Amino acid sequence: METKLTLNEKTVTISPGHPFVVIGERINPTRRKKLAQSLVEGDFSLAQEEARMQVEAGAQVLDVNAGVPGADEPALLRGVVEAVLEAVDVPLCFDSANPDALAAALAIYPGRALINSTTAEEKMMETVLPLAKQYGASVIGVVTDEKGIPATAADRLRVAEKLLKRAASHGVPAENVIIDPLALTVSADHRAGRVTLDAIQLIQKELDVNINLGASNVSFGLPDRKIVNVAYLALAVSRGLTTAITDPTAPEIQTTLLACDLLMGRDEYSMRWIKAFRKREKAKVEAAR
Amino acid sequence: METKLTLNEKTVTISPGHPFVVIGERINPTRRKKLAQSLVEGDFSLAQEEARMQVEAGAQVLDVNAGVPGADEPALLRGVVEAVLEAVDVPLCFDSANPDALAAALAIYPGRALINSTTAEEKMMETVLPLAKQYGASVIGVVTDEKGIPATAADRLRVAEKLLKRAASHGVPAENVIIDPLALTVSADHRAGRVTLDAIQLIQKELDVNINLGASNVSFGLPDRKIVNVAYLALAVSRGLTTAITDPTAPEIQTTLLACDLLMGRDEYSMRWIKAFRKREKAKVEAAR
Repeated sequence: METKLTLNEKTVTISPGHPFVVIGERINPTRRKKLAQSLVEGDFSLAQEEARMQVEAGAQVLDVNAGVPGADEPALLRGVVEAVLEAVDVPLCFDSANPDALAAALAIYPGRALINSTTAEEKMMETVLPLAKQYGASVIGVVTDEKGIPATAADRLRVAEKLLKRAASHGVPAENVIIDPLALTVSADHRAGRVTLDAIQLIQKELDVNINLGASNVSFGLPDRKIVNVAYLALAVSRGLTTAITDPTAPEIQTTLLACDLLMGRDEYSMRWIKAFRKREKAKVEAAR
Repeated sequence: METKLTLNEKTVTISPGHPFVVIGERINPTRRKKLAQSLVEGDFSLAQEEARMQVEAGAQVLDVNAGVPGADEPALLRGVVEAVLEAVDVPLCFDSANPDALAAALAIYPGRALINSTTAEEKMMETVLPLAKQYGASVIGVVTDEKGIPATAADRLRVAEKLLKRAASHGVPAENVIIDPLALTVSADHRAGRVTLDAIQLIQKELDVNINLGASNVSFGLPDRKIVNVAYLALAVSRGLTTAITDPTAPEIQTTLLACDLLMGRDEYSMRWIKAFRKREKAKVEAAR
């Protein structure tokens, strides 16, 4: 199934037949003091710089979060979105738990944005899905509900089915829903990584929807998290992961995802792999000057 | 299914429920002049050193190849095997296309060795499978026959079935056969990596056997092969790969495979991951002295 995100005439397609889509995560003031400070001061130059860097590094979509405690989030998210759209030309993903902030951003966005996110909780679905319908947006559906995160892959499939069914009842088709099967931390439960991999495969096979993952929770509390996160991305891509909200400026993530595309048959004549290699070599030469 | 390789009282179990088994590939004189030279001179100290290094790095089984052009391979393989068994205490894999060399090594080996390998070609199966039966060895079955390497995953499954059936007719049970679904190079055919991943999953699901892969062919002719090979291992592990003949002394391979075990639910309390991290840290400290 193909999920299409757009910005004006530009379309990014997420599907198992297309290159993996990286959604850049860096425009997010949580735990980033300098960025948070600049945003509340109404200075969006740092956010614009993050936008340019991430697109240059290979992000095809950018996540935008403006959740600074105490700030007027709807106004702030709208301001950041406007500034980011001046800086780059890629579809956006609006990352907020505040429905008014989502509505404010969606109202000014020229295209099909992505909403991050709704769970399968009644109240949340009934708030977020009407917004997706009204603005023609796509939405990330996270497989958790009032009972929490299901322990098994089969139960996560059931929650994903519930999300798709409710979305359909609001006029949001399955291709506009990206399921996030949630990766918990392996240091707390050694089966946590495996359950999510099995859930990706099962949901992809049964529902044919696109799958998103925040792939860094899995390594929480462990040493050498970078290696764990990168390995997890590859394991998940092999099972059917088609997009991830992650940091495209981390070179090991970008190169691993390019290698995965190459090895999953999504890079004809190895062209993207070779082009990225040349770019890395050029950067090395320039760094050595 | 569990494939057990033994050496005297020591057992290594290959199965989806056990940690991934690395078969160290470095005792192989092909393209290694110095090692080849030492072997023909009857000096096995370099082979012993390679054995120790690989086991220290995490190899659970060692591949032994003594194919030096012009040499008496049966005598040489036997000599190397004896020397390696003096140096380390892990099961061995005999790597030869020469049945006399295989027989010479199997005859002196105290346990269940692994034979590398037979294809599904008539003549080869009828030579190698009786040896496996006679010496109680396990065998790697490579999915190619008189017609070459099948283009699709379904056809590779059929060749794997043929191998298992013939093995059974010689009294070699399925648990003593490890299937190698063959990875061709993606630079020649961009679907090559994907076909093999699909074959791993299909063969594992339908036949429940263990799967081996030589994972470096896939990157032939491409730049930055290391990154491609490591990503391919992770993609393959996610599909059901349980063992690989590779270089355990390459740190990126060993750490990625440990991360995969952790994320596939095969590292309770993250103990192996944390232990390996400490070992890496210790090595860094010692290197800095």
